[in-house]
Amino acid sequence: MNTGQAGLIETLANQLRVDSIRCSTRAGSGHPTSSLSAADLMAVLLERHLRYDWDQPALPNNDHLIFSKGHASPLLYSMYRAAGMVGEEELVNTYRQFGARLEGHPTPLLPWVDVATGSLGQGLPDAVGVSLAGRYLDELTYHTWVLCGDSELAEGSIWEALDKAAYYKLGNLTAIVDVNRLGQDGPTELQWDMHGYAGRVKAFGAHAIIIDGHDITAIDHALTRARSDPDQPTVILAKTIKGKGVLEVEDKNGWHGKALPEEMAERAVAALGGPTHLQITTSMPEPGTPAITPDPQAAITLPRWEVGDQVATRVAFGAAIAAMAVRPEVVVLDGEVGNSTHAGEFKETAPERFFEMFIAEQQLVASTVGLSVRGYVAFASSFAAFLISRPYDFIRMAGVSEVSIRLVGTHAGVEIGQDGPSQMALEDIAAMRAVHTSTVLYPSDAPSTARLVQTMADTTGISYLRATRGAYPVIYGPEEEFPIGGCKVHNAGPDDVVALIGAGVTLHECLSAAGQLAEAGIKARVIDLYSIKPIDTDTLRRTCLDTGGHIVVAEDHYPQGGIGSAVLEALAGTDTPNLHITLLAVKGLPTSGKPAELLDAAGISARHITAAARTLVGALEGQSAAEA
Amino acid sequence: MNTGQAGLIETLANQLRVDSIRCSTRAGSGHPTSSLSAADLMAVLLERHLRYDWDQPALPNNDHLIFSKGHASPLLYSMYRAAGMVGEEELVNTYRQFGARLEGHPTPLLPWVDVATGSLGQGLPDAVGVSLAGRYLDELTYHTWVLCGDSELAEGSIWEALDKAAYYKLGNLTAIVDVNRLGQDGPTELQWDMHGYAGRVKAFGAHAIIIDGHDITAIDHALTRARSDPDQPTVILAKTIKGKGVLEVEDKNGWHGKALPEEMAERAVAALGGPTHLQITTSMPEPGTPAITPDPQAAITLPRWEVGDQVATRVAFGAAIAAMAVRPEVVVLDGEVGNSTHAGEFKETAPERFFEMFIAEQQLVASTVGLSVRGYVAFASSFAAFLISRPYDFIRMAGVSEVSIRLVGTHAGVEIGQDGPSQMALEDIAAMRAVHTSTVLYPSDAPSTARLVQTMADTTGISYLRATRGAYPVIYGPEEEFPIGGCKVHNAGPDDVVALIGAGVTLHECLSAAGQLAEAGIKARVIDLYSIKPIDTDTLRRTCLDTGGHIVVAEDHYPQGGIGSAVLEALAGTDTPNLHITLLAVKGLPTSGKPAELLDAAGISARHITAAARTLVGALEGQSAAEA
Repeated sequence: MNTGQAGLIETLANQLRVDSIRCSTRAGSGHPTSSLSAADLMAVLLERHLRYDWDQPALPNNDHLIFSKGHASPLLYSMYRAAGMVGEEELVNTYRQFGARLEGHPTPLLPWVDVATGSLGQGLPDAVGVSLAGRYLDELTYHTWVLCGDSELAEGSIWEALDKAAYYKLGNLTAIVDVNRLGQDGPTELQWDMHGYAGRVKAFGAHAIIIDGHDITAIDHALTRARSDPDQPTVILAKTIKGKGVLEVEDKNGWHGKALPEEMAERAVAALGGPTHLQITTSMPEPGTPAITPDPQAAITLPRWEVGDQVATRVAFGAAIAAMAVRPEVVVLDGEVGNSTHAGEFKETAPERFFEMFIAEQQLVASTVGLSVRGYVAFASSFAAFLISRPYDFIRMAGVSEVSIRLVGTHAGVEIGQDGPSQMALEDIAAMRAVHTSTVLYPSDAPSTARLVQTMADTTGISYLRATRGAYPVIYGPEEEFPIGGCKVHNAGPDDVVALIGAGVTLHECLSAAGQLAEAGIKARVIDLYSIKPIDTDTLRRTCLDTGGHIVVAEDHYPQGGIGSAVLEALAGTDTPNLHITLLAVKGLPTSGKPAELLDAAGISARHITAAARTLVGALEGQSAAEA
Repeated sequence: MNTGQAGLIETLANQLRVDSIRCSTRAGSGHPTSSLSAADLMAVLLERHLRYDWDQPALPNNDHLIFSKGHASPLLYSMYRAAGMVGEEELVNTYRQFGARLEGHPTPLLPWVDVATGSLGQGLPDAVGVSLAGRYLDELTYHTWVLCGDSELAEGSIWEALDKAAYYKLGNLTAIVDVNRLGQDGPTELQWDMHGYAGRVKAFGAHAIIIDGHDITAIDHALTRARSDPDQPTVILAKTIKGKGVLEVEDKNGWHGKALPEEMAERAVAALGGPTHLQITTSMPEPGTPAITPDPQAAITLPRWEVGDQVATRVAFGAAIAAMAVRPEVVVLDGEVGNSTHAGEFKETAPERFFEMFIAEQQLVASTVGLSVRGYVAFASSFAAFLISRPYDFIRMAGVSEVSIRLVGTHAGVEIGQDGPSQMALEDIAAMRAVHTSTVLYPSDAPSTARLVQTMADTTGISYLRATRGAYPVIYGPEEEFPIGGCKVHNAGPDDVVALIGAGVTLHECLSAAGQLAEAGIKARVIDLYSIKPIDTDTLRRTCLDTGGHIVVAEDHYPQGGIGSAVLEALAGTDTPNLHITLLAVKGLPTSGKPAELLDAAGISARHITAAARTLVGALEGQSAAEA
């Protein structure tokens, strides 16, 4: 780097600082000091290392830049201005305003933002997914750069990410840590203990480079070195000063997440040389196309089963996902339980598109997010209890990112039996229904599972399929279709006096109950609510009208926010008179036991459903008896 | 250790192995091979290092033993048998059976189990909480021993735990890692790379000791060394063989989580010398009482506000929790945002009972679990979006443990404004309602917040209080009481035609809407549903009867599983005819903006509530007009 280049970078860094101050002061909120500390780092990256065609954000070999410290959005947006993508007017006057795309924390509303950040410790894990795609699937030379804060290194997810980055030899990934010593509420744990950080980074298998984050030459060397390592991720530990460039706030506590007051901002901008209008031409990426070409029309031959066969839906998932391997864009990840979830069958079929995430469910989901950024159709599987609850914040943020990922959680509910309550997902439906963009599916047999797994591949947003541990009879023929948002009605007749609604394991209990009720002369129809969100409101409403509003819902889930709740929410919007509904769900804390014992103890087995239906229609029974 | 002692330990280890095999084979499921690998470690611990009065599990200075690898429950229960606490009959014949206390994974149904485990990577974080209590609050000499698996070291939460253990100098904590090389589905990431593990452990500040986990003398030395370190946690990395002692399965893949078939079990038991009946007398703990004596009756002077004052509920939380510091058992933890949540006010009042957990929300919640084990009344606070979703699996497991913890999540909903959707909790009510033992509170003003914070201290289970960022008028006087499970009815009159239900920020919108409706001659009552779970079903039912079933619910949360859903669930159990309900909730993805803009854009502001109410009672209005 010659003197002219260094001078240009200094000018750029000052512009990034000035712009970060201007936009946040105008907004009256934001994180200018967290932007100032990283301005030199980002100036060097933007001017000399990032390979990006700003006019074509979807160009396959563009580098990726992810702000894991999403609160430094003023800096990111100032970079966009320097790249000529955001005008001065938009930056200064619309930041954080209602209706603007320059939000408080970055979201993919902006075409250059891959993933929403702002929940700390997520950008780096997401980037691991992007880099997995780059190295193993796309086989392209793009590099993924991540700006991390030092506070977020306290998140375990950062270490899950570095661990997997090293395990998978992601030399195409660089984390730049802005070690500015100060968190939101005082000094960070390690403050400026650069060797403390380096020790951790090295122990987790990444290459660590300690630099002065305000030394342009040192930054340049570090970024060059980082990009040239073929097989090892690099973590650049940059010692910086929070608020760098504004003496009044430099390295001072109490200035996190605060816009500079107008007068202070004016002084600071003036001291930095005032607003400038430098526009940078970044390097172009090398041309290149991904090694994998998606083939969404590939002919898939789903496995077939005979009606009456005993098959677990997790087994059907494994068979179906293996069949899906003919689509080259399908990728599967598991949390070291692929022999239980049956995701392992995909591994046998297409090992080059299976990634073992070991027992690290946060990274499991984050990897699917990153793979989705690169256009892959990624499925993640584990036990439902761990797949949904452990990385729930990552799922929530995937919703904010509006990426498309697929989650398959097996071993749901008390049905799992002897392993006991720690392994029983009993809150996953409630949690997943409340996530933006989510689809929640819970099939009861093998063919419906296989069909839904196939459909998930083409479903946008976050789709979640809940699967059962045990084997239950196949109900549907191989040609039956299961559209998302639909349901299946069994035993419907004009004289039905009650509807029994179940999904997954309780569908079988509902069918048994309908048989018991028929013997007692009570006509019950059964609804297989395999699509819990979206839900088939029309059919539910018609059912209500047909059965005089008598409905029993049975679910292997806690009563709050589950299937019964979904039914109530759906009917609340309609003017269905006289709803007489009984919700059967798991109450209290289950224990170990055999599945049938636990379903019965939870009050969701056929006999409980039968009893609830009889109570509901008791008046009718009495009436019939009187008529007779 | 002399020859006799070593011989005794070998006999004990064999007994633990035999018993682990016997109980799991009889159950037909379980994890014998994961028990066999750690049998020598636990034999030495039990015989020579654990200080525990088995007849008095609540003795203050008893050591703690937590199986973070909860699936090794056969080993744990075999230890209980060796300690004379569980009979042979119970162990062999009831393990994993319905109705038994020896569940598939340990739960506190057993008096010697502190916390439920089985979701990997949680036992060690919980133990950090126990050890914090030991060092800083109880000031007792008890030691906390944790048996970890090697697979679970892939969980980021383990590194959050070690980081905090070292930061807080928890020399009273020892993790014993059973490095048996094999996970559930093949080799672990690091297999037997003992120095790889040691590098990580040391980098995170703990003392690492590598040993052969089947060398009795080496184990003994390591445990002695571990207990004698005053200021640094120890991690004993024990290289072991999965299935050790049963040649047919030793170090073989494919034997995780499988009971040995009966014939193989018989051979193995015979080779190990057959069943024995050794009973161990463990060392007694030194006498001691905790330095802190709880004083639940301490007179608390809650802060007071005037009706009409503008106060944020998070500010009220800070003031209330600081007032609670007069109760010596109250402890507060925060995730490095104490200046935003206002938990920092407790830190100023009682710094010795405030623990900064930095940006590590899993450890934040796990610490409260551990503190609860020691009888402390622990509150954890952070932004609701991060406090609930990041450690959701820890909250779920706290429910399974049936411990009592208190969570205060601030900055909920779109009301937070400019920071944007990544910071907005919009699914926390759904997620929290579905957790076993949970209480969900959402006060709308300062006095109700303060009262509820006080009540939470004496509430069992997991209580969650949702707080708002912005300041809103004080509604209630200082003497008003807010029982859990209650609600407050405003403006009730005999001619009310509609009820508006809100909580937190939307209560204020409902009150405004009622004013607007009154101007139009429509009488609306308003319900402050500050207690979402449990919910005041009686009042809701009576309201329905009073208003002809016309109800509008407005909530700053996604529509699935939230407040509207809670109302529907409550009314579903009652026979309330003709419910005409409109649920107003946040739909789609919010953006940055001012709070009022966002509440309006989400369709939950006063004008939307007014419009919904008018539509609901439209028929009545038409009717009145006709009568006039």
